[in-house]
Amino acid sequence: MTETEALVIGAGPTGLFQVFQLGLLGIHAQVLDALPQAGGQVTQLYPDKLIYDIPAVPACTGRELVDRLLQQVQPFQPTWHFGHAVSTLAQQADGRWLVGTTQGFECLARSVFIAAGVGAFEPRRLKVPGIEAHEGLQVFHHRQQPARFAGQRLVIVGGDELALEQAIACALAHNMSLPVTLLHRRRAFQAPAELVAQFDALCDQGALRFVAGQVTSLIEADGRLAGVQILNAEGQHEPLLLDALQVMLGLSPKLGPLADWGLALERKQVLVDPATCATSLPGIYAVGDINHYPGKKRLILCGFHEATLAAHAAAELLHPERAGALQYTSSSTLLQQRLGVASAPPKP
Amino acid sequence: MTETEALVIGAGPTGLFQVFQLGLLGIHAQVLDALPQAGGQVTQLYPDKLIYDIPAVPACTGRELVDRLLQQVQPFQPTWHFGHAVSTLAQQADGRWLVGTTQGFECLARSVFIAAGVGAFEPRRLKVPGIEAHEGLQVFHHRQQPARFAGQRLVIVGGDELALEQAIACALAHNMSLPVTLLHRRRAFQAPAELVAQFDALCDQGALRFVAGQVTSLIEADGRLAGVQILNAEGQHEPLLLDALQVMLGLSPKLGPLADWGLALERKQVLVDPATCATSLPGIYAVGDINHYPGKKRLILCGFHEATLAAHAAAELLHPERAGALQYTSSSTLLQQRLGVASAPPKP
Repeated sequence: MTETEALVIGAGPTGLFQVFQLGLLGIHAQVLDALPQAGGQVTQLYPDKLIYDIPAVPACTGRELVDRLLQQVQPFQPTWHFGHAVSTLAQQADGRWLVGTTQGFECLARSVFIAAGVGAFEPRRLKVPGIEAHEGLQVFHHRQQPARFAGQRLVIVGGDELALEQAIACALAHNMSLPVTLLHRRRAFQAPAELVAQFDALCDQGALRFVAGQVTSLIEADGRLAGVQILNAEGQHEPLLLDALQVMLGLSPKLGPLADWGLALERKQVLVDPATCATSLPGIYAVGDINHYPGKKRLILCGFHEATLAAHAAAELLHPERAGALQYTSSSTLLQQRLGVASAPPKP
Repeated sequence: MTETEALVIGAGPTGLFQVFQLGLLGIHAQVLDALPQAGGQVTQLYPDKLIYDIPAVPACTGRELVDRLLQQVQPFQPTWHFGHAVSTLAQQADGRWLVGTTQGFECLARSVFIAAGVGAFEPRRLKVPGIEAHEGLQVFHHRQQPARFAGQRLVIVGGDELALEQAIACALAHNMSLPVTLLHRRRAFQAPAELVAQFDALCDQGALRFVAGQVTSLIEADGRLAGVQILNAEGQHEPLLLDALQVMLGLSPKLGPLADWGLALERKQVLVDPATCATSLPGIYAVGDINHYPGKKRLILCGFHEATLAAHAAAELLHPERAGALQYTSSSTLLQQRLGVASAPPKP
């Protein structure tokens, strides 16, 4: 059982800056995220798109933003727990919170920061009976590296930008020896025109092929997945043989068990006191896209502010003896020591 | 008479980001600042110190922070009015606000954003009868370029880091032909040890000299300033001849006329609604260090958040017809057009 002063749920931009502000106040954090790496929505939904409204960062991609934040929290050495989705919350007799994950990790925390964005990101699942048995073997709901499919008959299901990108990446990686199949209801994609043009060109070259249809059932042989039965555009059933099935139907955020924790909610948002980002449960704070208060704007920079207020509120709760005037990183030796830069000479 | 949708008072980090957020919402801004350039407290008080708590900027100097923000507002081409301290505010019959400056500039604004930090920065003045007559001729309360004093007998008054830096800069610029005099109550400085050591070394080399004392009166001849009378460390009066007097007694922020504008205040802070940063006067917002609301932290990143809320609140007031869902710079063509990046290809 891990014991901690602070548990941060969500490693998106707001969760990362929560770790930073807690660190400045001398509080070490454990961090949970359902995804396999830091970044949350930003790296899931627009890793390569440019963001222009992060203050003092005129332009950066989602990935760069997360890299910068990871660099910023580095001095505070948080303990990461990736691939962990929270499931249970229970208050203990001493006021601490016991948080459990679906992966069996348990953490006893004096303060909890819910920075879960729009919820835990989970790939939308292809709904076909029996598909679970093949997950991770031949069926992949998480995006895989193209190399994983080398030499295989690969079918990708989906019609958005990420599905097309993955189809193109796999087609190029396979060096056009086996055409990669993209399966979608019809040949109409939610993707930029240039990407669709690149897709069409690779189809013409034989590196990709498009099949219009919807999966209705699995074709199995000796416990292995041999293919899928599809309902094609003409309303007829036909088999589509494959070795691997990459499902890319988008990500669907799930508030999930958080909704059952007894927190005051309003339209699936956690209500907080805007002065502290405290929720209705003592010692539990909510920051970023998941919270709501009068005037709330769902912008990354607002999450940074909220994480700051929450860190200070929690510090008062956890360490009332340390209370004092607000200190500044540009002048406070204490903060600079915590940042590991106390003896660094000023920039020339 | 200038007419504008938005007038931003203060070109520190918060004022600059206010311009940016207004620009994203399609609102052009006029900007006033009492200082001769952008940056406010940051460039006045710690231009070369490193700041570590700007989100996604692991470390930057005050000057770099301001440069980055200036780059970020560049697409919105605000109209700058530097060296203008606000003086008067009067509401017109049509609800607009007429703002006047001590320099005679007048602006009729539909919305006003007070981002004045701790007030307008003014150099602390040397209090000696008759000194005003020499201001800008032989007496300088604003920091001058060392070249301005070439070949002159220069006396610098002050004992802090900036005073020592200026004394050293002038001594080095003059190439040691005439010693620069630093005048301070006693030989004890509020400055880093290395700077004091450099000062001492230049004194040993004859490029600088230190005089302990306080100015009691001016010595004038033919309307010109010939020197100052000082009370020295031994309690005796003595003359100190000079051609130029650079006063560096620090900057003192003055809330000034703002305090008389009828805004609801609490301990010299402007009270705002935290949901919008609206003050008690309609169409007037206050953001950054000058405002107060429950939970307020006087941090730069909080000012960024506040400027964002204020921009959105003002946009609703100015352009209710444009109201709609919150748009994102990473995906909105409209915002990207306003930023001038609509046709820019994504980063490779």
